[in-house]
Amino acid sequence: MSTNAAVETVTSTGAGTADEGPATTPPHPDGPHGYTADKDAYLKRLRRVEGQVRGIARMVESDTYCIDVLTQISAVTKALQAVGLGLLEDHLDHCVVDAARSSPEEGRAKVAEATAAITRLVRS
Amino acid sequence: MSTNAAVETVTSTGAGTADEGPATTPPHPDGPHGYTADKDAYLKRLRRVEGQVRGIARMVESDTYCIDVLTQISAVTKALQAVGLGLLEDHLDHCVVDAARSSPEEGRAKVAEATAAITRLVRS
Amino acid sequence: MSTNAAVETVTSTGAGTADEGPATTPPHPDGPHGYTADKDAYLKRLRRVEGQVRGIARMVESDTYCIDVLTQISAVTKALQAVGLGLLEDHLDHCVVDAARSSPEEGRAKVAEATAAITRLVRS
Amino acid sequence: MSTNAAVETVTSTGAGTADEGPATTPPHPDGPHGYTADKDAYLKRLRRVEGQVRGIARMVESDTYCIDVLTQISAVTKALQAVGLGLLEDHLDHCVVDAARSSPEEGRAKVAEATAAITRLVRS
Repeated sequence: MSTNAAVETVTSTGAGTADEGPATTPPHPDGPHGYTADKDAYLKRLRRVEGQVRGIARMVESDTYCIDVLTQISAVTKALQAVGLGLLEDHLDHCVVDAARSSPEEGRAKVAEATAAITRLVRS
Repeated sequence: MSTNAAVETVTSTGAGTADEGPATTPPHPDGPHGYTADKDAYLKRLRRVEGQVRGIARMVESDTYCIDVLTQISAVTKALQAVGLGLLEDHLDHCVVDAARSSPEEGRAKVAEATAAITRLVRS
Repeated sequence: MSTNAAVETVTSTGAGTADEGPATTPPHPDGPHGYTADKDAYLKRLRRVEGQVRGIARMVESDTYCIDVLTQISAVTKALQAVGLGLLEDHLDHCVVDAARSSPEEGRAKVAEATAAITRLVRS
Repeated sequence: MSTNAAVETVTSTGAGTADEGPATTPPHPDGPHGYTADKDAYLKRLRRVEGQVRGIARMVESDTYCIDVLTQISAVTKALQAVGLGLLEDHLDHCVVDAARSSPEEGRAKVAEATAAITRLVRS
């Protein structure tokens, strides 16, 4: 995930003003997120997961042996969690690091929010 | 999931032979599985999971805040695991109980296979 | 875990009474459980887990780097889950198979109970 | 990560020197970790987990019903994961936020390391 890609997105929403400056602290408060640069890759992975869920339905429809259906369910669960872990890393890399660079307090607020999300991932 | 439903399916594929006997050890070696009676309910749940995965893709497409995407990923992971746990219970209820009633050895072979599937679910 | 081993334990506690009969349906309603034959192995594994937890406390005490503590916590969690999965397989192998051999209803009651335990393992 | 560093920092805060300055950005580059302030609370929780593991061993020793042992294993697994999630939040709050404030690159290196640890937690 390159900083260039993130900056491109920022400028594209920012309507091409020339005097944006060195942009050491990128603003995008609610704009493009950590995963924006990898969006296409995430969408591709999610389409694949969607197809795999459809495949599980077909297995059930054609009376596939239960254990084989369960094996596939475990695989898809892992694929979905892997997407989640990827999004999380991008979020920590961008939103959390940026917030921390604004102020330690903002960093900690983002960390608390991210930890709650991690807890849900661990428990699911 | 009633035994009647399972037996019905067996006889419907068995073309109504009269001499099937008391059926204390139901045959269906590869036939209808534990989940057959609930098939429609499982298909409905899997369609819903498929729609939820598509919803996650739409969230990514429209730059939804990462944490909200992660919350939805945790929810869908749980829904998929719940389908797996339901299929597992049906499998234990039918395939494993039936195998155990054939012989302790067959019961144990099915238990070993089910435990491997449970391990994959716990680890995913 | 062999049936012989389980039977041995039963007879050894039963003090060699001659009239125990053919024991085709082993009684032990609340007696030795599925894991009885492997009890020493389980106790050994649990002592090791206990030592590992003590090791984590020592790591915290001596200010070990957080990530290294987390790695060890993941390893101990897995070791504990592996003990749980072993106990579960023994339980399915003995209590559930025996119950199924008594009657399909008893088998299903045990399966429902086991599935609830599996759900807690998957969610933990 | 040396114990010396930890001791140095402790004495530097304990030694009442007048010239410590405003300390808005606490230094401890490799010294006390994120969890240092909560160390006693973590040690207490880990002692409790250790006692719970010992309790599970006693349950096995006294032939407690398998399902009850499994329930306790799930509870202890959750308690251990909760310690891990607490340590993780402290780590993100301190080490990762501090690294991000040094430079985005250092922040990202710490994030990559933390994400690997999170992946192990999710998978365990």
